[in-house]
Amino acid sequence: MTDLERRIARLEAEAEIRRLKARYLNACDAKDIDAIRDCFIEKGAEIVFPPIGTFNDREGLIQIFTQLAATTPIIDSHQGHNAEINIIDEDNAEARWSLAFVTYHPEQKTFRLLSNFYHDRYVRTSQGWRIAYSRSEPRLIFDGRVTDANGVEIQNIPAPTA
Amino acid sequence: MTDLERRIARLEAEAEIRRLKARYLNACDAKDIDAIRDCFIEKGAEIVFPPIGTFNDREGLIQIFTQLAATTPIIDSHQGHNAEINIIDEDNAEARWSLAFVTYHPEQKTFRLLSNFYHDRYVRTSQGWRIAYSRSEPRLIFDGRVTDANGVEIQNIPAPTA
Amino acid sequence: MTDLERRIARLEAEAEIRRLKARYLNACDAKDIDAIRDCFIEKGAEIVFPPIGTFNDREGLIQIFTQLAATTPIIDSHQGHNAEINIIDEDNAEARWSLAFVTYHPEQKTFRLLSNFYHDRYVRTSQGWRIAYSRSEPRLIFDGRVTDANGVEIQNIPAPTA
Repeated sequence: MTDLERRIARLEAEAEIRRLKARYLNACDAKDIDAIRDCFIEKGAEIVFPPIGTFNDREGLIQIFTQLAATTPIIDSHQGHNAEINIIDEDNAEARWSLAFVTYHPEQKTFRLLSNFYHDRYVRTSQGWRIAYSRSEPRLIFDGRVTDANGVEIQNIPAPTA
Repeated sequence: MTDLERRIARLEAEAEIRRLKARYLNACDAKDIDAIRDCFIEKGAEIVFPPIGTFNDREGLIQIFTQLAATTPIIDSHQGHNAEINIIDEDNAEARWSLAFVTYHPEQKTFRLLSNFYHDRYVRTSQGWRIAYSRSEPRLIFDGRVTDANGVEIQNIPAPTA
Repeated sequence: MTDLERRIARLEAEAEIRRLKARYLNACDAKDIDAIRDCFIEKGAEIVFPPIGTFNDREGLIQIFTQLAATTPIIDSHQGHNAEINIIDEDNAEARWSLAFVTYHPEQKTFRLLSNFYHDRYVRTSQGWRIAYSRSEPRLIFDGRVTDANGVEIQNIPAPTA
């Protein structure tokens, strides 16, 4: 590979990883289980998502996501920011992201607002870049309830758990 | 065109489309009508923005934007996330984006928070990439009123209309 | 430099500036003073951040940041959007960004929500791209207090100061 080819490949890797994370976050909101599954390596992905749980494989995440989101009326909004993507070599990369998350339960009228950092590692597979490790570091959580008469009731402000 | 040139052109197209969408969203907030107009193809842009309206040309959007925003004291914040940009060929591209939108009316003290997906199509014109189709899929809408005594009053939570 | 090399260098500059701004915003949230300092040119950075202050050097920003954030329990969330990055030449670039900012004081239970535009200029140094000028144009500010009994109390809505 020439030097120019190497530089182009690096830019392509960064663009593909940016798209991978976007696809993952949008798939969570769309409750598209197959698309979520396809964002991770097939076996052994490490997923550390307090307070929801820690998983040693993408199937663990899929299981809890199915319980909490895919089979309930909740409406989620996962929005990613401030990507610091570092291409380590041809097959390995890492990134820090900042997430804004809102979840709303239309029957219970409860919501959660969360800001976190994601600390991710990615590997290049024969199908393209995939998430091998993703750790969420919660920074700010607001839990509340929508009440028509009294406005938005904030039930508790958990301390950052990071 | 060599293979390397093709790969560079693809990266440039993605960067330009990212900038185009950013320019559009910031122009809406800056109430810069000329800049909004310049983001779309000259004739026949399809714009599907429920609950505001559906338009077969950029001038339809400009007209409603002038009524709702450009000639009123409202303050808007359109912020784009999670771009899944797909370069189809040299002249055609598509993308899904996630939007966080806030609008605030300083006299009525009302606000709207909205999360949506944008489903866009872009074409390359002699002036560069432009939006040919943009459909907003609203996912979560909160309407509220700021009241000093009683906090934020949430008036209604429309169901997702998607 | 060949034309292809120039095009690749331009894409690399845009990617690096995107990473620089992400690193700056995340460093503010992580209260990482050294990382914040390293985002600016060593001498003479112009930083115009109303209502916090105007500074002629990165050390002025570091000083106020230390007082307001690094030595207090506040939790901040700086999230960048809608980057319109313009590479002027090999060593100069400019950008407009849209920011969503939340700050929360866990003891006073007060928060501020802010939307702004950043107007930035960047220069390429021997260490890479750095911020030479950054002006914040506040667009929408909500100050509030979290009160368990009465919901979220909005204390005042300052007019945009831009």
